[in-house]
Order: sequence, then structure tokens, then C-alpha cells
Amino acid sequence: MYNKINKKDLAYFQNLIPESRLFFGKDISEDFSKDELGTVSKYPELVIKAESAAEISQIMAYANERLIPVTARGSGTGLVGACVPVCGGIVIDTTRMNHILELDSENLVLVVEPGVLLMDIYSYVEPKGYFYAPDPGEKSATIGGNIATNAGGMRAVKYGVTRDWVRAIEVVLPTGEITQFGRKVVKDTTGYSLKNLIIGSEGTLAIITKAYLKLLPLPTKTISLLVPFKTLESGIDHVPQIMQSKSDPTAVEFFSRETVGFAEMFLGKKFPDTRNDAYILLTFDGIDDKDVKAKVQKAADLCLSELGAEDVLIVDTEERKDLVWKARGAFLEAIKASTTQMDECDVVVPRAKVSEYIRFSYGLTKKYNIRIPSFGHAGDGNLHLYICKDAMSDEAFEKTLKAVFEEMYQKADEIGGLISGEHGIGFAKKVYMHKLLGETQVNIMRGIKKVFDPNNILNPEKVI
Amino acid sequence: MYNKINKKDLAYFQNLIPESRLFFGKDISEDFSKDELGTVSKYPELVIKAESAAEISQIMAYANERLIPVTARGSGTGLVGACVPVCGGIVIDTTRMNHILELDSENLVLVVEPGVLLMDIYSYVEPKGYFYAPDPGEKSATIGGNIATNAGGMRAVKYGVTRDWVRAIEVVLPTGEITQFGRKVVKDTTGYSLKNLIIGSEGTLAIITKAYLKLLPLPTKTISLLVPFKTLESGIDHVPQIMQSKSDPTAVEFFSRETVGFAEMFLGKKFPDTRNDAYILLTFDGIDDKDVKAKVQKAADLCLSELGAEDVLIVDTEERKDLVWKARGAFLEAIKASTTQMDECDVVVPRAKVSEYIRFSYGLTKKYNIRIPSFGHAGDGNLHLYICKDAMSDEAFEKTLKAVFEEMYQKADEIGGLISGEHGIGFAKKVYMHKLLGETQVNIMRGIKKVFDPNNILNPEKVI
Repeated sequence: MYNKINKKDLAYFQNLIPESRLFFGKDISEDFSKDELGTVSKYPELVIKAESAAEISQIMAYANERLIPVTARGSGTGLVGACVPVCGGIVIDTTRMNHILELDSENLVLVVEPGVLLMDIYSYVEPKGYFYAPDPGEKSATIGGNIATNAGGMRAVKYGVTRDWVRAIEVVLPTGEITQFGRKVVKDTTGYSLKNLIIGSEGTLAIITKAYLKLLPLPTKTISLLVPFKTLESGIDHVPQIMQSKSDPTAVEFFSRETVGFAEMFLGKKFPDTRNDAYILLTFDGIDDKDVKAKVQKAADLCLSELGAEDVLIVDTEERKDLVWKARGAFLEAIKASTTQMDECDVVVPRAKVSEYIRFSYGLTKKYNIRIPSFGHAGDGNLHLYICKDAMSDEAFEKTLKAVFEEMYQKADEIGGLISGEHGIGFAKKVYMHKLLGETQVNIMRGIKKVFDPNNILNPEKVI
Repeated sequence: MYNKINKKDLAYFQNLIPESRLFFGKDISEDFSKDELGTVSKYPELVIKAESAAEISQIMAYANERLIPVTARGSGTGLVGACVPVCGGIVIDTTRMNHILELDSENLVLVVEPGVLLMDIYSYVEPKGYFYAPDPGEKSATIGGNIATNAGGMRAVKYGVTRDWVRAIEVVLPTGEITQFGRKVVKDTTGYSLKNLIIGSEGTLAIITKAYLKLLPLPTKTISLLVPFKTLESGIDHVPQIMQSKSDPTAVEFFSRETVGFAEMFLGKKFPDTRNDAYILLTFDGIDDKDVKAKVQKAADLCLSELGAEDVLIVDTEERKDLVWKARGAFLEAIKASTTQMDECDVVVPRAKVSEYIRFSYGLTKKYNIRIPSFGHAGDGNLHLYICKDAMSDEAFEKTLKAVFEEMYQKADEIGGLISGEHGIGFAKKVYMHKLLGETQVNIMRGIKKVFDPNNILNPEKVI
């Protein structure tokens, strides 16, 4: 169905792109054959480090004509194989398109190329007094990848997800045409929201070449509260009360002592408290010190007087902040380091069902005799559960993984959840999404894919 | 192309729907032939007041088979003809589907039928301590209509638009199939966002039969500041500074003394200040009295010391609130009452370009010798401009309107704006949207329409 890249094709691309940005055959690094988790793997035939929308446009137009698959890739920090070129063809690496193009302070908009890293956005805007709120755990992800997966993060509780912070995107369509969805405006009801359709479509409908991001004035004060509970469920069960309490939390995370232990081992640093089995980590921010302190006080009082917390530890010194947030930031890597191989489940469930889901995962641990450490976003019902291979054989792990995933996604469905809160569907979760959403919805998605990409050359075999 | 409703069709619907909820031919009220502005007009052949998704499903399936157009209609408060059945056929009136189905306080979700009025949502949730933030001017609109147009409103500055407050929607597809996009979850990156595609699609892709709305704890304090300026431009020009000031405004409105005058005449009540030519109306809210007062103080100081305001009037007594907000709420009706006929322009432009656009409208007033009163949302760049017919002949008005609209939308395009911020495209603004977005984007939208509605029976001739 697809054409392999031949000598004539290669000559075309060599003419278009300088040698230093073009990698073919054996020159291609293993990195381009997988993502962060490495559960899906396939080498591309050609890697092009693009530097402009114009280049991507020419590559796309040619590939579309010649029926060569094209997959866009940022930092490759995904977990579901979305950037892995499972049908071969070309990988367009956008990491050299890493320029911040404009900070429009009057309209509170930041214009960036897709290869700009999340951490570079923070370090650019924050010293100037501006705030880009989405904060997915992986700060070395590109903004293009964040938009393609509608990445979430911890501050989603108060500030929403990446979708809510994208004013407009410039994209290259599979035909090679460059177009822009949205503008530097706040409201938009000018036709179907193609911008929102591209966001979260994991590079299957268009390649993002520029993004217009919303900014806010930077909150001047941030304080966290680390709240230990006797059990994870008893902590999580009270999250709805915290959300109703008018204490306006920015983030509400949960994790167990076990997960903290992995992070301590991984980082070689002690966590401020390890005497308890479970922790809820709350963050509060604002533009007024007194206001933030009042919110913290309200939440702390509630936790101690009504929610049965064992203690409340205020995380306001730089040292303590560093310890807590470094640990929180290292959970994924730390769990990964604790096992031989793992796969993950990124379900999102109604907030009030998080603890039921965690209990359910304990059951799976026993039933399949397998470790499933977890942590996640209690404030928005988004859980990350890691199924660890440990000493299991490849064959046994594959079989167990399949059975565990089947049960996990069915349970999510039963309690009103969805397959993915923030990591996407990519290649790895397709079968589960299809089962949960059903033929009607998947067929609509397939129809939409065909409208954008009739030749199915853009990131084929992903999502749908 | 479409079939007219014949005796056999009528018998089918009479068998399905009780007589009291079915209107045919001359029994159809004139209301169903137009919307609030009445610029588009056409009678349906049949009006059905539906009571359930199941009924709508059966109507749709039959109409799809028989190629009879179907248009869904809420309160008919739209301004661009989106609910007018321009190809005839059936109008499904959803106003009897006006039940609030559930307030899920743990997940902060309100489940409603599509015919629930916006004002009924406020009066249901607010006494219970919950907040649904979107506040389009027309409080008697249905939530179904609000979602179909992605309605905005004044609090969009701080809280976003309707899109941001919809967790999930149940819809009837043109085939008659009932399906649900999204769930009671906060994050979702499970495939293409079909929910976001339906929101703002003005009833052309599916009929909304249930909505799951996001709630927040109700802010306990709201204070407004009425800030008079020498000229409208001098006030509006400073809005970007207010937005950068860390005073966290909920709403930032602008209007002129002229517009206030219409409202005074319309309501028979005096506005608190009419000595000045122009006004910026700021609102601040929060969960802590002191915090809200601090924000108000910060903004008031800024307005007086740096922005050249003539005065600042704190709107905190019930009487003053009533006067100011009644006037603000009456602007559209009041301007309508001031003329024989009018049409409106709902452009959205970058925040920093609002005053340039207003000045441009003054030029049009002179050039075409026509009144164009305006008001709008300075905080989010969304303007409402009303081209008034007054004593002009029908013919002259039609010609002038066309010329004025052409110039207005071209100007919006030039300064980075879009055709509609919150009122939609419907039938009236199609030609302008097509010109601004271009063939490529409109063709994608047409392709998407075909995926959902291959027979083009659902609200045909709208948006695309």
C-alpha cells in the first residue's frame, strides 16, 4: 500500500534538506524507533530534522504524492507509541524548530515553534511575570507534542489542560498546505472548531508548526500542603470535600509511601515524611500572599478537623519545596527504574471514583501476582498505574499485561471513566479505546481522518 | 432534493407524538419562522415539541430515511438565523426538555436536558452554593442553544466560554443513533474530541439531548467598578494594562453614553453616572471578601493613577448593582427599540485592537451616514456592533448593510480577528466566514459535515 523510499525520493529530500539534518538507513539513531516507554518499536526509513513550516510543507506534499508515511516527532517523551513510525517512512523531527517567536504582552499570547520545550516556556515567560499554567510531569516534552496529546498535568485542577491554553495553531495539512486554525483571540465561534479537533489528535490530522499560547499574569505566591493519611483510600475519599471547600486548590495529587520510596531510591534524597502510608499533596497559588495563606489555612483546618488527616506539613521553604516536587517529578522514572519493564494505564474516572479504582487495582495485584504501583491526579480523577514486569518472562508478562489492561479499562468504563486522561491513545491503546467508545464514534473519527488525510499517510495506524 | 412532508409522513409523526405537541401548516406560530433578530425567515412544515432523546431519535431516523430536513430549536434567541429552517421540513423544539436531571456535588457536575434555560441553571445551583460561570447576555436562552453556539458572555475573561464548562454531551446523530461524547471526567484525551467538534457547530452535526456541565463552588463576593473615561478609545486602550495588572478581573465591559441612553429610555431608569462619554465596567469575584476588596482597590488605584480615568464608582450596593446590570443586560433590546430594524456584527479581535476597531466603526458611520451603536467585551476583544436602519428604505438598507458588513469583516481579518466571538455563523454570516477562513478550511468543515450527515438533512445551509 505504501511506497518505500527509493533513490529518487532520497535525492529529492537531499536536494531539499542539508545533509546534517537528514538521516537515512543505518545512520538513524535507535531513539527514533521508539518513545519514552518503548512498548512500540519500528525504525523510520528517513529522519528529517525540519527547520520551518515551509520545509515540512514540501516534505508532506511530496510524501502525499508518493504515498510515503510521515510521522511528526517532538522529544519522544510519549508513552503510547504515537511518535513511532509503525508503517515506516519519514519521521519529521521538530526539535530544531525551537524558537520562541513573540511574547505579545498586550494580548497575553506567546507565539512558539512546535519544538520549544515546556521547561523553556516556563523559563522564558516566568521571569517576565507571565504564566503558562499547564504542567505535565515531563518538562522536556515539546509544546507540539503537548498540543498533539492535549497534555494535562498537575495544575489542571485549577487551570485546565493544554487545550485550554492554545489560542491558535498553524499546521501543515497532509496535502502540504499551510493553514492556521484560530487567531490571537479569546473567543471564537467562527465555524467548526478545527483547532480543538487537531488538539489531542496525536499528529494524525496535521503537523503543528506554530502555536499561539494563552498567558496569564504570574501568580506571586505558591504554597503546598503535604497531608498524610492512614490509607490511600481514606485520603482520596476526601478529595471531593476539598474540591467543594472553597479553598481553590491548584493541584491535588495522591501517592503512596511505596511510590515515595522509589523516588527516594532514584533520587538518593529523603522525603520530608515517610512515617505514613499515603499522602495527598495540595497546592495553592494566587496573586496575593495573604489570600494564598488563607486558602492554605482553610484546607489545613479541614484536613485536620474533618477529613481525618494524620498531620499537615506546610511546604513553603525552598528546601522542602525542592524535596517534595523533585520526588513528585521523579515518580515515573523511579518506578521505571524499579523494574525490568513496564506498561502504563492513564485512565480518567469521575473524581469521586478514584479510590474505588485504586482499591480495584489492589485486587488485580493479588489476582495476577504482579506489582501495580500508582500515583496521580486525585483532583481531576486522572490515575497513572504502572504494571511492572519484574522477574516475569516476556511471554508471561505479555499475557498478564493483556488480561490486566482488559480488566482495567473495563472497570474504567463501568464507573464512567475513559481510557486516557492525558497521555493519549497512540498505537498502544487503540484496541481499548475502540472497545470503550464503540463503532459509531470510531467510525466518525475514521471519517474525519479521511477528510484531512485521504491517502492515510500522516501517522497511520494511530488513534483510530 | 428534499422531500416535502406528505400525508403519510404526517400520519407517522401523529402516531409518534401526541397532538398537543405537534403543529402543522397554519397551526405553526410565526415564532418558529425566525429568531430573535429576524433577519432570516422561513416557516417549517412541521413543529414537534420533543420530550425525550428517544423521540428525537425516532424523528431523526425517519426524516433521514425520507430526506426531510430537521432543525433543532431552543428558545430562538439566536441572532444569525441558525434555528430558522431555511429548507423547510421539521423544527424540533426542545423547550419541553427542561429538566435538571442531577446535581452531582462530589464530581461538581450538573446534568441537564437541552431545553433548560440559562437563568434556571443559575437559580437552581446558586442557592446550593454552586457556580455555573458562563453568562451570555440572554438568560432566557436554552443550554442546548448555548452549547450549539459556544456562547460566551461577560465572565469569559476569567472563566472562559460555554465550551470550557461542558464535560460531556449526549446527542442524537442524523441517523437517529443516540451516543455520548465525553463523560463526567475532567481530563480527556481519548481519541479526537468529538465533544468539542459538536460544541459551536450550531446544530448541523447532531442534536444535543443532554449536557453534563462543570460546576465550581460559588464565589461568595462580587464587586463591580464603573470607570468613566473621556472617550471610549481612551478607556479601551487601557484594558490590556488592566489585564496585566494582577487584579484578576472577572469581566471587562465597555459601552458609551449613547448606549447607556438607550438603556435608560428602554428601562425608564437612570444610570448611576451619565456625565461621561464612555465607561469601562469591571467585575471582580472571589471566595474571600478581603481578597475581592483588595483586587478592586488595586484596579481602582490603577485606573485613577495611571489610566486617566475620570472617576471610579464602586458598584457594591444592591440598588446600584441592579441599576448597572439591568442596564448592561438591556443594551441589545434597547438598541433594537431605538430603530426600525437592525443587523449585528459580533467580531472578535485581539484585545489590543478593540479601540482601533471602534474608531474604524466611527468612520463607517460617517462614510455610510448610518448609526452603528456598539458595546461589548473589552476584556476578550468581542464587540457587538448594531447597524441601524432607522428611516432608510428597505432597498437602501440592504445595500448599505452589505457594504458595511464587507468592510467590517475585512477590517476584522486585517487586524487578526474572526467573524464571530459568541453568536455564531448560522445562515446570516456564512458568506463572510467563507471569505475569511478560505476554501481549504471550509472544505474540511464540509467534509466533516458529510461524515456526520451524509444526507445533509440536519439544519442544512447553516455554517458551511
